[in-house]
Amino acid sequence: MQLTSIIKRAAQVNPRGLATVYKDRKQTWPQLVERVGRLAGALQKAGMKTGDRVAMLGMNSDRFIEYLFGVMWGGGVVMPMNLRWAPPESAYAIDNAGVKILIVDDAFEAMVPAIRERTGNIKTVIFAGDRETPMDMMNYEEILEAADPVPDAGRGNEDLAGIFYTGGTTGFPKGAMLPHRGIYSSSLSCVWGFDLTDRASYLHAAPMFHMADIAMMISTCLAAGTHIIIPMFNPEATLEAIEAHRPTHVLLVPVMIRMMLESPEFDKTDVSSLKRIIYGASSITESLLVKAMEKFAGCGFAQGFGQTELSPVCTILDAKHHVLEGPYAGKLRSAGQATNTCEIKIVDPAGNELPAGKVGEILVKGPITMLGYWNNPDQTAATITDGWVHMGDGGYLDDDGFLFVVDRLKDMIVSGGENVYSAEVENAVTQHPDVAACAVIGIPSKKWGESVHAIVILNKGAKATEDDIKKFCHTLIAGYKCPWTVEFRTEPFPLSAANKVLKTELRKPFWEGRTRRVN
Amino acid sequence: MQLTSIIKRAAQVNPRGLATVYKDRKQTWPQLVERVGRLAGALQKAGMKTGDRVAMLGMNSDRFIEYLFGVMWGGGVVMPMNLRWAPPESAYAIDNAGVKILIVDDAFEAMVPAIRERTGNIKTVIFAGDRETPMDMMNYEEILEAADPVPDAGRGNEDLAGIFYTGGTTGFPKGAMLPHRGIYSSSLSCVWGFDLTDRASYLHAAPMFHMADIAMMISTCLAAGTHIIIPMFNPEATLEAIEAHRPTHVLLVPVMIRMMLESPEFDKTDVSSLKRIIYGASSITESLLVKAMEKFAGCGFAQGFGQTELSPVCTILDAKHHVLEGPYAGKLRSAGQATNTCEIKIVDPAGNELPAGKVGEILVKGPITMLGYWNNPDQTAATITDGWVHMGDGGYLDDDGFLFVVDRLKDMIVSGGENVYSAEVENAVTQHPDVAACAVIGIPSKKWGESVHAIVILNKGAKATEDDIKKFCHTLIAGYKCPWTVEFRTEPFPLSAANKVLKTELRKPFWEGRTRRVN
Repeated sequence: MQLTSIIKRAAQVNPRGLATVYKDRKQTWPQLVERVGRLAGALQKAGMKTGDRVAMLGMNSDRFIEYLFGVMWGGGVVMPMNLRWAPPESAYAIDNAGVKILIVDDAFEAMVPAIRERTGNIKTVIFAGDRETPMDMMNYEEILEAADPVPDAGRGNEDLAGIFYTGGTTGFPKGAMLPHRGIYSSSLSCVWGFDLTDRASYLHAAPMFHMADIAMMISTCLAAGTHIIIPMFNPEATLEAIEAHRPTHVLLVPVMIRMMLESPEFDKTDVSSLKRIIYGASSITESLLVKAMEKFAGCGFAQGFGQTELSPVCTILDAKHHVLEGPYAGKLRSAGQATNTCEIKIVDPAGNELPAGKVGEILVKGPITMLGYWNNPDQTAATITDGWVHMGDGGYLDDDGFLFVVDRLKDMIVSGGENVYSAEVENAVTQHPDVAACAVIGIPSKKWGESVHAIVILNKGAKATEDDIKKFCHTLIAGYKCPWTVEFRTEPFPLSAANKVLKTELRKPFWEGRTRRVN
Repeated sequence: MQLTSIIKRAAQVNPRGLATVYKDRKQTWPQLVERVGRLAGALQKAGMKTGDRVAMLGMNSDRFIEYLFGVMWGGGVVMPMNLRWAPPESAYAIDNAGVKILIVDDAFEAMVPAIRERTGNIKTVIFAGDRETPMDMMNYEEILEAADPVPDAGRGNEDLAGIFYTGGTTGFPKGAMLPHRGIYSSSLSCVWGFDLTDRASYLHAAPMFHMADIAMMISTCLAAGTHIIIPMFNPEATLEAIEAHRPTHVLLVPVMIRMMLESPEFDKTDVSSLKRIIYGASSITESLLVKAMEKFAGCGFAQGFGQTELSPVCTILDAKHHVLEGPYAGKLRSAGQATNTCEIKIVDPAGNELPAGKVGEILVKGPITMLGYWNNPDQTAATITDGWVHMGDGGYLDDDGFLFVVDRLKDMIVSGGENVYSAEVENAVTQHPDVAACAVIGIPSKKWGESVHAIVILNKGAKATEDDIKKFCHTLIAGYKCPWTVEFRTEPFPLSAANKVLKTELRKPFWEGRTRRVN
């Protein structure tokens, strides 16, 4: 399983088809393969040796795709960097992974001096933007022009394809090492599970540095389809690209779907090309999903769930399970079922497998799993046991094998000896018609250890009170799960780069000077 | 990539679904997994150690599926035996692979003494039939009952999954060693390429010992679908099973399709459940395909092409390419395009890659390739170079990346210094309305080295003469490719177990006492 094989095959089976569409640039599959071979040659000239890590810090672009395949073609290892990182975090990752070559674009070249101040590791910076090349940087197009295409280095299978830093929001980021077979296998199950038929076209609106978008990128290559690329998500640019380029597939996170639906442009836009909207990275409320299904009429919805360590998809809730009635009703709240490239089980803290209906930790095994964390044997040993990756998420399987994720274990609230899963409480609160968004956390309580605290953003003009929210919840869930206190805010929640609500940030003011138990 | 994972996942995601339907026996996915674990335990009790080969000689049945997974679950290696072999051939394979445990059914138990006469290797024979258990054999159900399910041995990836003997018609059979990742990868591309949606149901009419059917078996497991099983193909039994069990998919070889269409039962049978007829193992004439497409209205056709050494599929001609008009017209005659788990190239005898349109040998690389031939380093080295498997077939890629197989290299006719591909000549001859079937071979010619000889079976009552056939061909193909001589016969062509016409047999009378050049 060699990721570079996929683009060679795509060029053979779809030689006249467009591989990438970005701004006013378009290229066919054979053109992409030619540029990838050339970039590999240029990187080797710049000193890249087999197994060397090459980082990229940039917005979405056609060159980002060339970077991913070019590095692997030349024998290197990719390391796409999180766009939200501050220079110290970027410098940490560069030092940690021993990166000597960094590629940046217009949006990030200005950050390079601040990164270099903190690490002496970087020898070469390649500028892949469209503006003038900064001093001390090599120009991407010039080095491509000066290089000849080189033969594919032929790395594959267990060879390291990339290091993907994850978990930066809870301490120093860990570099998940994904082998070629991991990303290849995960993407094969996505092609099938998300119904990427031959020649599908995929809109890259999600950030390309993230494994969720990279898996869709590889899936699109497996379908010999077309990559439609916008630099980054914003609701209007995304809608415009959908109408202009008519993609069949797009990956969005729930907050993006909400923003698009709320955009004044939505009703003027032709979104009829979309066959599948894939969502993930965070759970979606039923109310939002129902609205989205109504507004994107004729388009199927499918959820992917996983984590970077799983390359990243382990379950899919496919389109036919997105229904409100019939035998599949209620599955909407699940993350779907194991893909056909993994096995899933739920275990108790002692590692015993639990039967259907019982909550425990979610474990995943199969070709999609990472090799471990870069230079971090302790975390690796804590995460992978007997080939099973411990997700750190709590959940259960129902009688039909659907996975219900109840919480990150660390977000679970322990109140009066009872486990309260914040996701369940959030699902109740957001069903209130006045609520736009909600995050539930555990806050210190002398009596209960922790008490359930809801932070709520109301719809514009809505007037629900703390008491209204609490009473409403009591009609839906058990009393001990209902919010004890409700706080209203108007500013958006702090989000991670993957658009997950940063509960650590929300908890901070309450836990100042105290230590919260960690599961 | 662990093949046993696939059935565990199927039992999780489709716990109430039927896994197998055979005669009056049915079992759900969890029941199948339970019996597989039990069979693994029984085989271990019978002496099977990690990596041991266990052979099966039997018709299609639910127990054949249990055998395949049970052996692997228990740590062993499967070795399904060719049903057409005579006892000396079976004994050869058993000796060659060092098989100690053999499983047989009602149809083959009588052959065991003749096999044992020729090899002292077999220690245990298990009788998986439904009649009374012969002396000296263990009963399949009894040993299952007496055993407890054991834990999955966890073999996968590069571990040997099975030895599949191939090429027995041209000398001693060679044992292609297929690893878990080979069969898994090939089947993943089949799931997608043959449109096996979630819960597809597949009719096993093709023999289960053959990799073509095994790949479909694994694909059906990947879709958590249902296996509908008949002991062996015959046109009426197949039609009956289609109407009774309503499968969505079936794999047939062209000769089977023809027999079904010619059956008096055809027009009385409801074949409307079929969504895809997959054909392969030999090429299909356009006239037969057109007729089949008309008769199986509403059903798509898809071709799989490959060989055992490729686990076995490397190209698929999918349903949308089965058209007579439009941009894909003419692709019908191809074997389709590379699947998304391999790369294909065409090379000249020196190993140089050839451009589109040029005929050479077909080479295939990717996760689908075999590990080599069992105990046969010479043949392995001759077949795999730099990871590329030499198919031994001649062919070319067109400008759209479609593979056209022109011939087995050994079937190519060299006449007057020109290469004549028998497939091309056969395609011309069979377009004659009087021709039911045709095989073209090279026969000795003092002047030309070889001359083109056509052996023709006419339709009932048809009266075309040798001269008619020759003249007809001259309207379609170049003169040097046209048959020099035409021979008529009424009996069917000799076929291999994979239903390929045995040209070695047809050539024999002409080459008695002479040596034919081998490409």
